[in-house]
Amino acid sequence: MKIEYEKIKQESHTQARLGKIKTNYGVYDTPMFMPVGTRATVKSLSPEELYDVSSGIILANTYHLWLRPGADIVEKCGGLHRFMNYQGPILTDSGGYQVFSLAKNKEKDITEEGVHFKSHIDGQNLFLTPEKSIEIQNKLDSDIAMSFDECPPASASYEYLKNSLERTLRWAKRGKKVHANPNQALFGIVQGGPYEDLRKYSAMETVKIGFDGYSIGGVANDDESKEDMYHAIEYSIPYLPEDKVRYLMGVGEPIDIIEGVIRGVDIFDCVLPTRIARHGQAFTKNGKINLNNAKYKEDVSPVEEGCDCYTCKHYQKAYIRHLITTGEVLGGRLLSIHNIRFLIRLTEELREAIQKDQLLAYRDQFIKQYQSEKK
Amino acid sequence: MKIEYEKIKQESHTQARLGKIKTNYGVYDTPMFMPVGTRATVKSLSPEELYDVSSGIILANTYHLWLRPGADIVEKCGGLHRFMNYQGPILTDSGGYQVFSLAKNKEKDITEEGVHFKSHIDGQNLFLTPEKSIEIQNKLDSDIAMSFDECPPASASYEYLKNSLERTLRWAKRGKKVHANPNQALFGIVQGGPYEDLRKYSAMETVKIGFDGYSIGGVANDDESKEDMYHAIEYSIPYLPEDKVRYLMGVGEPIDIIEGVIRGVDIFDCVLPTRIARHGQAFTKNGKINLNNAKYKEDVSPVEEGCDCYTCKHYQKAYIRHLITTGEVLGGRLLSIHNIRFLIRLTEELREAIQKDQLLAYRDQFIKQYQSEKK
Repeated sequence: MKIEYEKIKQESHTQARLGKIKTNYGVYDTPMFMPVGTRATVKSLSPEELYDVSSGIILANTYHLWLRPGADIVEKCGGLHRFMNYQGPILTDSGGYQVFSLAKNKEKDITEEGVHFKSHIDGQNLFLTPEKSIEIQNKLDSDIAMSFDECPPASASYEYLKNSLERTLRWAKRGKKVHANPNQALFGIVQGGPYEDLRKYSAMETVKIGFDGYSIGGVANDDESKEDMYHAIEYSIPYLPEDKVRYLMGVGEPIDIIEGVIRGVDIFDCVLPTRIARHGQAFTKNGKINLNNAKYKEDVSPVEEGCDCYTCKHYQKAYIRHLITTGEVLGGRLLSIHNIRFLIRLTEELREAIQKDQLLAYRDQFIKQYQSEKK
Repeated sequence: MKIEYEKIKQESHTQARLGKIKTNYGVYDTPMFMPVGTRATVKSLSPEELYDVSSGIILANTYHLWLRPGADIVEKCGGLHRFMNYQGPILTDSGGYQVFSLAKNKEKDITEEGVHFKSHIDGQNLFLTPEKSIEIQNKLDSDIAMSFDECPPASASYEYLKNSLERTLRWAKRGKKVHANPNQALFGIVQGGPYEDLRKYSAMETVKIGFDGYSIGGVANDDESKEDMYHAIEYSIPYLPEDKVRYLMGVGEPIDIIEGVIRGVDIFDCVLPTRIARHGQAFTKNGKINLNNAKYKEDVSPVEEGCDCYTCKHYQKAYIRHLITTGEVLGGRLLSIHNIRFLIRLTEELREAIQKDQLLAYRDQFIKQYQSEKK
């Protein structure tokens, strides 16, 4: 089957909604956070550890898997689920974002046909097209494939963005045409930068093509662009159908997840929880903490009091700090478990707040506490 | 309690024996292989993964934990078991081996009092004595502590070894005198290089001092010194008491474990299974294989057919190769699970062979198959 989205409840004071996604691997509640498994592995974690933090859909990167080990090998191994031993739903991105962000020397040649660029691994010439992206994703056999889009830089002009999103629409049509995996949903992507008319146009035209779900792309999530991100969501959401899932790509800061949910987003993904974990950082309700800090040397308390994750139930900060400062990979592994669980528990709490029509109060309380550490 | 060893059975045709070690954390069968958790972590693995491969005693390194995070911090955290969350027995070495192998620039000044050397991390001046080593191990609160000994290089002369082992005997007495942890056993170490008279003398004198168990130290395990290693065991074992456990330090090649067991050794430790795992190598009954090899690119079979470990039950060689060649730490983790399980299963099979008085036939069959890959 392809996925099905069912809206369960609309929050009274916001655009937030409760929903259920029916997938090949079970039914999951939204809003949901998706951990990222770039190269068919959520860095350092086993599938069992992902189930244990209640993860639902996870994301894998088409670009990375295309380069290594190659889509044909994953297909020969029985598809992504068998390959990485994950018995839950998997979403693959289109490779577009990586082509634009990782291409060697950032050199690329965007034509109507596709994008010429050099591999970031060995510099070899590569050519990715909308058809090729879908063909790779069909072979990977993920549950959700993404349309191949251009991801323009944040600095792109209105003119550039307009032309770019027109091309992305043509690419979306071409991709849909060749999409051939009957068990795989296909999502469209709304672009248009920070511009209201472009977002509206992109959303309406993408919906006209018709997809199983819609994502909002091209949002930067650095601190300076928060308002642009929130606007991009606000300008896109009203034109997306109620009965399809809405996915904000690449966003994982706790406050951004909350603001996204308030504006009607259902699913999120981000490398943040695992990336900061490897550098010794942990999310807590009182803000991010850095376990490299000498003040945790003898701290026998868990990373976060009251947290229900494996790490917090069994380990002291002093031990995790020891692992991180000596370069032991178990440190990043334990913090990855905590950080992913933190974001997933956040979405659980958001669902509860929506259920009670108290989402705005939840946000205010969360932000107040989350920023308390910065004082 | 301190540990207790009970001999259960003597093999008919060899020195091999079946036994049981009673510890603070349960009763375990010998012969046994102990995984190494250098810095209070068996690299990349969780305690649950160690229980799952049926590990019993694990080893942690006094030298490394003394330098980072420091014995006082481990003590404040509640001792090694609480610190690393391992609810099984832990043996700590004395730090001697690391002082002699890791000291910065290999510069060290051995006096009667102890060893002056520079930290391999930051070059600071350090001084380790028999008393200090025991004091650190008392604080770490391992279940078995080791006496501080000198580990002379393989090239050391007879004269040097003789003087060295006399000093090691004096150090052993000093260490025993200050040993103060009532729940911790203390083992003595037999030295003497490849010389029969020195091994005999060292063994007899060490036993006179009286320890809870005895280890055979100073054996190199490179391919050139196999005969020396086997001789060192043969020259030492006859003088060790039947009712105490015998530990061959730092040995983990499958064939050496078998030869050690045949000569009467009960327990072994080695970093080999985890170290080779990080480099993509796996033990199999047909010899070591290297997953970096391109021939495994599309190999959908497990690392070892018929293996009962988590890795072999769930993953294909092609996936593990992908993880190893892209530098994903899950690769080393999965191979570490397999390699440790391989050595522990080897000891299980050795126990079965001893039970049936078929150890020599088992060895011959094992070696024949293990070396088949090399043809």
